[in-house]
Amino acid sequence: MCNRKGKFMNTQKLRIIPLGGMGNVTKNMFAYEYDDEILLVDCGIGFPEQYMLGVDVLIPDVSYIQKRLGEGARIVGLCLTHGHDDHIAALPYILPTLPSDFEIYGSPLTAAFAQARMADSGVERKVLVYDEDRPFQLGKYFSVEPVRVTHSVPDTRHLIITTPEGVCYHGSDFKFDMNPVDGVRSDFGKIAAVGQHGILCALVDCLRVEREVWAPSESTIYNTLEQEIRDCKGKFFVTLMSSNIHRVQLAINVAINHGRKVVFMGRSIEQNAKIAQELGMLRIPKGLLVNKKSMEEYKDEQLCVIIAGSQGQPGSSLVRAVYGDHPLVTVTKRDKVVFSTEPIPGNEGNVYGTIDELSRNGVDVAYSDVDDGLHVSGHAGLVEQQLLISLMKAKYLFPIGGTDRHRVQFARVAHELGYAPSNVLLPVSGQVVEYTMSKAMMGETLTLKDLMVDGLGVGDVGAVVLADRKTMAEEGMVTVIIPEQEGRYDFDHIYVASRGFVFMKQADEMVSAIKETTSNVLREFGNLQENDLKKKIEKQLTKRLGELIGRTPLILPVFMEV
Amino acid sequence: MCNRKGKFMNTQKLRIIPLGGMGNVTKNMFAYEYDDEILLVDCGIGFPEQYMLGVDVLIPDVSYIQKRLGEGARIVGLCLTHGHDDHIAALPYILPTLPSDFEIYGSPLTAAFAQARMADSGVERKVLVYDEDRPFQLGKYFSVEPVRVTHSVPDTRHLIITTPEGVCYHGSDFKFDMNPVDGVRSDFGKIAAVGQHGILCALVDCLRVEREVWAPSESTIYNTLEQEIRDCKGKFFVTLMSSNIHRVQLAINVAINHGRKVVFMGRSIEQNAKIAQELGMLRIPKGLLVNKKSMEEYKDEQLCVIIAGSQGQPGSSLVRAVYGDHPLVTVTKRDKVVFSTEPIPGNEGNVYGTIDELSRNGVDVAYSDVDDGLHVSGHAGLVEQQLLISLMKAKYLFPIGGTDRHRVQFARVAHELGYAPSNVLLPVSGQVVEYTMSKAMMGETLTLKDLMVDGLGVGDVGAVVLADRKTMAEEGMVTVIIPEQEGRYDFDHIYVASRGFVFMKQADEMVSAIKETTSNVLREFGNLQENDLKKKIEKQLTKRLGELIGRTPLILPVFMEV
Repeated sequence: MCNRKGKFMNTQKLRIIPLGGMGNVTKNMFAYEYDDEILLVDCGIGFPEQYMLGVDVLIPDVSYIQKRLGEGARIVGLCLTHGHDDHIAALPYILPTLPSDFEIYGSPLTAAFAQARMADSGVERKVLVYDEDRPFQLGKYFSVEPVRVTHSVPDTRHLIITTPEGVCYHGSDFKFDMNPVDGVRSDFGKIAAVGQHGILCALVDCLRVEREVWAPSESTIYNTLEQEIRDCKGKFFVTLMSSNIHRVQLAINVAINHGRKVVFMGRSIEQNAKIAQELGMLRIPKGLLVNKKSMEEYKDEQLCVIIAGSQGQPGSSLVRAVYGDHPLVTVTKRDKVVFSTEPIPGNEGNVYGTIDELSRNGVDVAYSDVDDGLHVSGHAGLVEQQLLISLMKAKYLFPIGGTDRHRVQFARVAHELGYAPSNVLLPVSGQVVEYTMSKAMMGETLTLKDLMVDGLGVGDVGAVVLADRKTMAEEGMVTVIIPEQEGRYDFDHIYVASRGFVFMKQADEMVSAIKETTSNVLREFGNLQENDLKKKIEKQLTKRLGELIGRTPLILPVFMEV
Repeated sequence: MCNRKGKFMNTQKLRIIPLGGMGNVTKNMFAYEYDDEILLVDCGIGFPEQYMLGVDVLIPDVSYIQKRLGEGARIVGLCLTHGHDDHIAALPYILPTLPSDFEIYGSPLTAAFAQARMADSGVERKVLVYDEDRPFQLGKYFSVEPVRVTHSVPDTRHLIITTPEGVCYHGSDFKFDMNPVDGVRSDFGKIAAVGQHGILCALVDCLRVEREVWAPSESTIYNTLEQEIRDCKGKFFVTLMSSNIHRVQLAINVAINHGRKVVFMGRSIEQNAKIAQELGMLRIPKGLLVNKKSMEEYKDEQLCVIIAGSQGQPGSSLVRAVYGDHPLVTVTKRDKVVFSTEPIPGNEGNVYGTIDELSRNGVDVAYSDVDDGLHVSGHAGLVEQQLLISLMKAKYLFPIGGTDRHRVQFARVAHELGYAPSNVLLPVSGQVVEYTMSKAMMGETLTLKDLMVDGLGVGDVGAVVLADRKTMAEEGMVTVIIPEQEGRYDFDHIYVASRGFVFMKQADEMVSAIKETTSNVLREFGNLQENDLKKKIEKQLTKRLGELIGRTPLILPVFMEV
């Protein structure tokens, strides 16, 4: 369909759909949809909320994509922005549910991290490396050009996505590090150029909008580590996020400077360092690395151990080394342990528990509360976001990567920069943003499920299972087995078993009360339907136990035909 | 027994015993023991660790005291330092287990808070008010003199405890606020004077030793609230720790300044404000307070609501008002909510969840991430601790009120101030510090239990119950009932019930696998003792379910004689 000037006339819409929901920091996945083509960006895991007991990770809900595929749409490509788990680690779960006729792209490090992640789960899929210097076409409607930016994992990209409706700038996680460890600054020129050319909509990482400062450079960590290593008389342990290859490089540089050999310890750090080294992104002089199994050939003061476990994860290399459970290494009084990281909310107990244990053992330990130069954020502060906005001059702004308080705060900032409220897009979770004739509108709201992964099961843990887990976690569980013969209940052989309630061997009184209450219910309501009778028993036992001991365990009545 | 100069010659020891353990920030309770006399200081609750599922609070273990009472010792008094729950709220649990022949003392506000706490639990016990101006004798051996200090609850005291071995300075939670809201500065003169006279041992709050700064004055909050209220067009909500009466006063002052009436909302804030007002520690002009039930008689812009729920506690007044569940008040778009507090570690989810909900609803919300003037700490920073140490010139220092990393850091600071390592006391948890002839030694280590309160039960939740709760929380529970008749198992009627495992209605495969595995075990090992057989079933089912679905629920096999 063409208009009078012969230009393609658009009756279609460009639709942007956050498949991981809005208001989540993690679980990042976006779909750009035009006509029958879908371009995907990122495919990350989310981390369970406190109430999601026993859940390992969350993954995006691609059921809308599957529906569209059923209607004849096709996926024209999946572009990855960077190698953090909340952007790539859902690939092994999601890819098997989609056709395999589209390509996946990433920067060299992101591609390698993504492939390693998939290989860990037995999913084989090649990730292609972006051609950096020009846009590449995906399908009929989309072309994509990556933009180098800095972040807490090297080789991060933003994406310039050109569509029939205009240009979108996909500005996920970034900071503007002016002195990056590898010397590769963000590509301000490219951003400014596309800004001059005209951007319809810019999606912007808003996570650190509350902080007015320009995030300090990753390079500043070098001096801190340099100060920390000086007085170390034994092994120098550095623990950090294992994907932060630049920080690993700084720790290596400090070790070199002090004539120490370097040992990598822990699966994630060993795997990531190997990948980065093979890509030439981690520069390690020959003879510097010592295999963890050969550590004992060196004196303590000759070693720098870069070790996994910066969040105090139970079972991590660091935690095992601290508690003397590691087969290869122990942290002793002469050593020093440096946490070059901050606890992620929810992990304070594990992190500070580890630091307290080290302190108890007389080990010198440094962490950001006593040395605030040990960590810098990987996300842009307010001024960096303002700079990006100013360079882009996009018509619409779309804050992503933050929770609702960050999105609202970002909108406030955008208004101060002259954006009208209607030009800052704050869709609710699942809501589609649509563009026609260069104008944005809020489209329909998809129902996105919290897809929970627990063990090998995906999506089979739901609200009922979680509610039961919560009750059992806090109050325990009581099973009451009622023998039944030819429709008559055997009161004398009611059997009570419980777990997590009280220590039953000392609780004859409880068992008697449970039996008595159950019998009373059976006598009074024995003619009810079985399900109704169960509910009566649950209700009465809950009441009785609440009075007796102030606890309301999960009650599981079982009628047992004998 | 007298020496040649007729002076009382000491064959006894002074013993200091931390009954709440060492390395805990909370659960504060100390015993000072000399000969057959015991002086108690504080009686606070602790907060459960992450793994203590379902536990409400922890209380100190006084079994050593009970043992000594049985041997003829007696309690000569219980002195309270201040009105925070981790110093007073275990009174209702502990007092009923001790004789009632000793007096309890506190400052006016502390005494009133402690009595209210006890009344809430139906425990009646008078708390006497300190005579401030002179030492008072307790028993034959102890005399106590309170010292005014500042903290985040008004009317806080340190204690000068004179014993036959020398003077102890009990320096629990404090800061040196140079501009306190009530104008009552810490009593530097008294501290300096007792320092001149000679202190054997000083116990010092070390919690904020990691922060080099002098903690900002509570009074600085006024300007922040003043700035926040200016642009508020609807109701002005302030939420804070309800015991922080000084901050309540500042919120009141700001309200007065802007012609607003004040409403207290939430049980804790209403109770505490009433107590403080009756004692004259909260100055509220006549006609300023509006009963929460009469709020609707006023326009929104005429109201300042001081509301409980600053930690985002589910069920608190603030959270109910935010989610529209409060019968008397709703937070609307024109209102402003100010969090004059910081999330306590572990509460981030609740606090930020509430802030996100407010943001989603378009409510203006201020919190310390966007306005760092909204909260100041109640604890002394490093320089304040150094000043206290310098004023006291104690022979021994004994850091308290921090975890092990704080105690070790404090010891480092003390060494820099010239203290020999042997003069900084770092007992392990339960360890008694003994003094004879003015010399400190480490005594025996008492076994202190983590006494957990769950509902009405005290101490009946232990390691087994908690371990079961953890498994059920993360993996769910499966009950397998095996009918048994005259020693033979009825394979055909094995019954499976589960909760929190998978959604069983969709899990026929699981049920079949469980029945099959159980039958196999019964066939192979049916001649084993019942307990051994149960263990076999648990082990085999754990293995099978792990393979099938990657979950290892708690298995509860029940043999049911029919």
